[in-house]
Amino acid sequence: MKNFDFQTLPNSEKIYVQGSRKDLQVPMRKIYQSDTPSFFGAEKNPPIFVYDCSGVYSDPNVKTNILHGLPKIRQTWINERNDTQILPKLSSKFGLQRLNDKSLQDISFYQQNNLQPKPLKAKDGKNVTQMHYARQGIITPEMEFVAIRENLNRQEYVKSLQEQSPKMAKVLLQQHKGYAFGAKIADISKNNSQNLVENFAEIEITPEFVRQEIAAGRAIIPANINHPEAEPMIIGRNFLTKINANIGNSAISSSIDEEVEKMIWSIRWGGDTVMDLSTGKNIHETREWIIRNSPVPIGTVPMYQALEKVGGIAEDLTWEIFKDTLIEQAEQGVDYFTIHAGVLLRYVPLTAERLTGIVSRGGSIMAKWCLAHHQESFLYTHFEEICEIMKSYDVAFSLGDGLRPGSLYDANDEAQISELKTLGELTQIAWKHDIQTMIEGPGHVPMQLIKENMDLQLQHCYEAPFYTLGPLVTDISPGYDHFSSAIGAAQIGWYGTAMLCYVTPKEHLGLPDKNDVKEGIITYKIAAHAADLAKGFPSAQIRDNALSKARYEFRWEDQFNLGLDPERAKDFHDETLPKESAKVAHFCSMCGPKFCSMKITQEVRDFTENQRQAAMQEKSVEFKKDFNGEIYKKV
Amino acid sequence: MKNFDFQTLPNSEKIYVQGSRKDLQVPMRKIYQSDTPSFFGAEKNPPIFVYDCSGVYSDPNVKTNILHGLPKIRQTWINERNDTQILPKLSSKFGLQRLNDKSLQDISFYQQNNLQPKPLKAKDGKNVTQMHYARQGIITPEMEFVAIRENLNRQEYVKSLQEQSPKMAKVLLQQHKGYAFGAKIADISKNNSQNLVENFAEIEITPEFVRQEIAAGRAIIPANINHPEAEPMIIGRNFLTKINANIGNSAISSSIDEEVEKMIWSIRWGGDTVMDLSTGKNIHETREWIIRNSPVPIGTVPMYQALEKVGGIAEDLTWEIFKDTLIEQAEQGVDYFTIHAGVLLRYVPLTAERLTGIVSRGGSIMAKWCLAHHQESFLYTHFEEICEIMKSYDVAFSLGDGLRPGSLYDANDEAQISELKTLGELTQIAWKHDIQTMIEGPGHVPMQLIKENMDLQLQHCYEAPFYTLGPLVTDISPGYDHFSSAIGAAQIGWYGTAMLCYVTPKEHLGLPDKNDVKEGIITYKIAAHAADLAKGFPSAQIRDNALSKARYEFRWEDQFNLGLDPERAKDFHDETLPKESAKVAHFCSMCGPKFCSMKITQEVRDFTENQRQAAMQEKSVEFKKDFNGEIYKKV
Repeated sequence: MKNFDFQTLPNSEKIYVQGSRKDLQVPMRKIYQSDTPSFFGAEKNPPIFVYDCSGVYSDPNVKTNILHGLPKIRQTWINERNDTQILPKLSSKFGLQRLNDKSLQDISFYQQNNLQPKPLKAKDGKNVTQMHYARQGIITPEMEFVAIRENLNRQEYVKSLQEQSPKMAKVLLQQHKGYAFGAKIADISKNNSQNLVENFAEIEITPEFVRQEIAAGRAIIPANINHPEAEPMIIGRNFLTKINANIGNSAISSSIDEEVEKMIWSIRWGGDTVMDLSTGKNIHETREWIIRNSPVPIGTVPMYQALEKVGGIAEDLTWEIFKDTLIEQAEQGVDYFTIHAGVLLRYVPLTAERLTGIVSRGGSIMAKWCLAHHQESFLYTHFEEICEIMKSYDVAFSLGDGLRPGSLYDANDEAQISELKTLGELTQIAWKHDIQTMIEGPGHVPMQLIKENMDLQLQHCYEAPFYTLGPLVTDISPGYDHFSSAIGAAQIGWYGTAMLCYVTPKEHLGLPDKNDVKEGIITYKIAAHAADLAKGFPSAQIRDNALSKARYEFRWEDQFNLGLDPERAKDFHDETLPKESAKVAHFCSMCGPKFCSMKITQEVRDFTENQRQAAMQEKSVEFKKDFNGEIYKKV
Repeated sequence: MKNFDFQTLPNSEKIYVQGSRKDLQVPMRKIYQSDTPSFFGAEKNPPIFVYDCSGVYSDPNVKTNILHGLPKIRQTWINERNDTQILPKLSSKFGLQRLNDKSLQDISFYQQNNLQPKPLKAKDGKNVTQMHYARQGIITPEMEFVAIRENLNRQEYVKSLQEQSPKMAKVLLQQHKGYAFGAKIADISKNNSQNLVENFAEIEITPEFVRQEIAAGRAIIPANINHPEAEPMIIGRNFLTKINANIGNSAISSSIDEEVEKMIWSIRWGGDTVMDLSTGKNIHETREWIIRNSPVPIGTVPMYQALEKVGGIAEDLTWEIFKDTLIEQAEQGVDYFTIHAGVLLRYVPLTAERLTGIVSRGGSIMAKWCLAHHQESFLYTHFEEICEIMKSYDVAFSLGDGLRPGSLYDANDEAQISELKTLGELTQIAWKHDIQTMIEGPGHVPMQLIKENMDLQLQHCYEAPFYTLGPLVTDISPGYDHFSSAIGAAQIGWYGTAMLCYVTPKEHLGLPDKNDVKEGIITYKIAAHAADLAKGFPSAQIRDNALSKARYEFRWEDQFNLGLDPERAKDFHDETLPKESAKVAHFCSMCGPKFCSMKITQEVRDFTENQRQAAMQEKSVEFKKDFNGEIYKKV
């Protein structure tokens, strides 16, 4: 298997913050800044710490090898819990068949490594989900890991700030309409999303807070016991807004190498989770390589593979085939499954009068199955059995919105909201089994209906995390649907969506390539970050303020490096002013050397200061003259 | 001067809708659609009419020549009003000096054409503004023109729809949560922006409605009597949301040809107005070529040129130099002037503690001037004199926000809101002179403060149209600031901003080239259109519905052509499926041939219909059996 060049981002260092145990090392990216030029009052600028999804690929001290996969950082934690068993062999018939198929030698992870898979499963009667532990009052290393990860910038940054730039520290402490780095855990049990996020600004993310959120079902840590390579991350609206990148081959194109590369490329730019939506050849093998090399949780739609197994004929799907697929994927280590169990028979006719019918692939497959058999889908009728599988491996539910709208016209209609209510009922069943659960959402929604959609989700699904695809706020932008969906994504993120599924420029047109993946991710990082700012997360605001300060002080390199895509920023700057000297110039190409408003502002500041001093001087002279230098005039 | 290739968009026809007089020809682009494939129930699909800013450049029957400029479509209307005089020569000293400078022969429009400029000016004691006419109860041809233009799609589309696709007509008539093509003029005098826009959906844009909106100051038609080439357009929140594209050279780069090309390129993609922000060489000549060839209103910041005249030294600016610049530009035909008259001496110190000080170029120049002279700016003290000039040519005010925030941190602060209140006071003075006025806004605003900013503007500026730059909703996106600002632009547009000033990918980094201009415009068309949809404009929703229907029916070419950028959509599609046959294929590369949810949906529909018919058949058999075919059983 091909290894990929992973260039680290400029002026950045990979660091780890250690938790309560030696093997709990939380990754962050530390961006160094240069000093403020003397013209603007020389001062040290502290490094900025940013959330880092890129795994050890960005660690110069680790040599990765795709062939062998990543180190299993969670293995000890899982073993220590002593509630899992090592299975002697795979439990899935299909998995075993692929493993033993010698014709797959060139593309099989296990055959290539001459290894036998040894999947983990909960011991009989045990439940290995993070939600189960949380409800038992147990704080797992995974919970502590995400607490440190989400507390990004608070301690380290404030400290370095106070030491190096007391002026900036003051600015930050006053910031954001009264929000501060307050460290008290607020009462977050109110079920009003606006208040929740406002209160959040005062919350310090403690491991106990993480536990409470997971126990309440408001957040999940997707963490299959068979994916010990993954660095824990949390999805919930009281945490930083996350984004997912979809990759995967189709019958038309793409190879395993390409998909692994897309995964690594996705996390380089900030993908928090990756969904492998392959529907083409060698789905099983492609997924194995992706999981073994992924430091982020991997999600799938098991139905896609199940359908391949029955030659693409929806009516031929059976519970047995689907169940074997779930077990196959759970033992590979998939962290969350999209399951379209809310597509009920009686909802299908509600879509017949839609402008764009059913556009979810999973949804349309199940709709067809339901109609062909004239009975409720096996996803719905076997839901409790699915739960038994999920909790044996800690696979999280991502309850699919099979009836999501495919156009603005169909948004928030009866079919969609009926299914949403059913997803809420299924959430209650999943929670009965302590299974971590999130809910998928649209799609295509005009701006004026986004808040309504979010509020209905919170209401009907009992605050389980929402995970939306966009939504697009107009349908007339083919080729630019990453933008039009990011407009909706930023808003719904602000209103409370926990994870945003990216959309690439190729949406509705073709399969994304590497460049499209990057465009999609950066666009969604912008949306997610804008949501975090609007929700009042201080760790988000810090980065904006640092970049703004760098911009004001003409620290060009810092401005590039603090941004989401330092390379592009630098390239764009260099197009107009390619010389190295321009990067220390106190002007930019927009206005030219004599015409810079920032420069003038600085002159205004100096002027104001001089005026003030002159006035004091004058007063001082007057004082001396009038009062003969005495403060209290003798009367 | 170079002529530019202007390829018309695919499957589109340039049409004109004639108003009450022969010379009132309102341009639109008519996009033809193909028939629905038989698989989806063959039907005719009516053409869609879209707003068209591209002028005669997109008319194959007109041969344009940059050297001579565009036809003067408004000349007769202006002359007929009989309130203007033809001046024997330019009134501006600087204008005359440039005209007579033989060294400028190669770049002077008049010298190249061997012509003398004959500027128009109001007759003594006359006021030639559209607002003045509106307040006299006069409906000008300009007002009728914009009424037809804004009514886009209503009559023509509904008619062709009913003739060709009664099913689609039904869908559209039910659309948008009860909004319909209702044709009554609602009471729009309520001063609540949300209600206004909701009511708007029921408003047919009549010339009388346009007149009322202009008379009330809620909308403007920028239409300098010396720019008769311009096709009238309206800016106001009860009309379609408009976008502006900034172009202009700087001391560092760009030529006249390039700037004219950028203007033509801007309008091709949908720029509603263009601001020439040149700060480099030959500003006067560059502007002349742009205006003579522009079918859209041109805006400027006269201060930029005035500063060039004093060698870039802000303190050396005088009222006389500025006044001559206003007259020079008014006689060239600039349609709106950005004037930063709200930067008062007492507000300047309010910016000293900001993170990014004053970032508006005009604002910082005036701040410096105020401090240097320790007096209020000549823009403020001579405001009534400026009004005299504006109303003599019908130049509209765009009251500049010199103290807008340069970072999220500084958003909605005291400096900004203080200036906004002053802009409201100046609006009242301008309205006393019947001068059309809009208000400029930020800039950089986090999502949670955007609505507040819009509401404050409506309140303090008496509902004068708001014209914002973005705003960016995060500062960490250099290289992608067109996106992050479009997120804010879509929201503020929905809340009531009338025109959105675009931002390009080069913002904060360098000068935009042709590609950047296109990226900025398409991004802002998305934001503006999303705002129009959220406000409930039926003419906007029609295009989305048509595209969604084309998408559902696999009419690939229609899907490309109905979008904002048909070329890119087609290119993206062709990257994965280059063959011509793929464009009539009932699948796309995302899912492959067997796995298409839309196809399955259609099967679901057919199935439902068959089931229904089978059920009826069964009932029919039962009926025959039970009742012997008689409706009322004999008892």
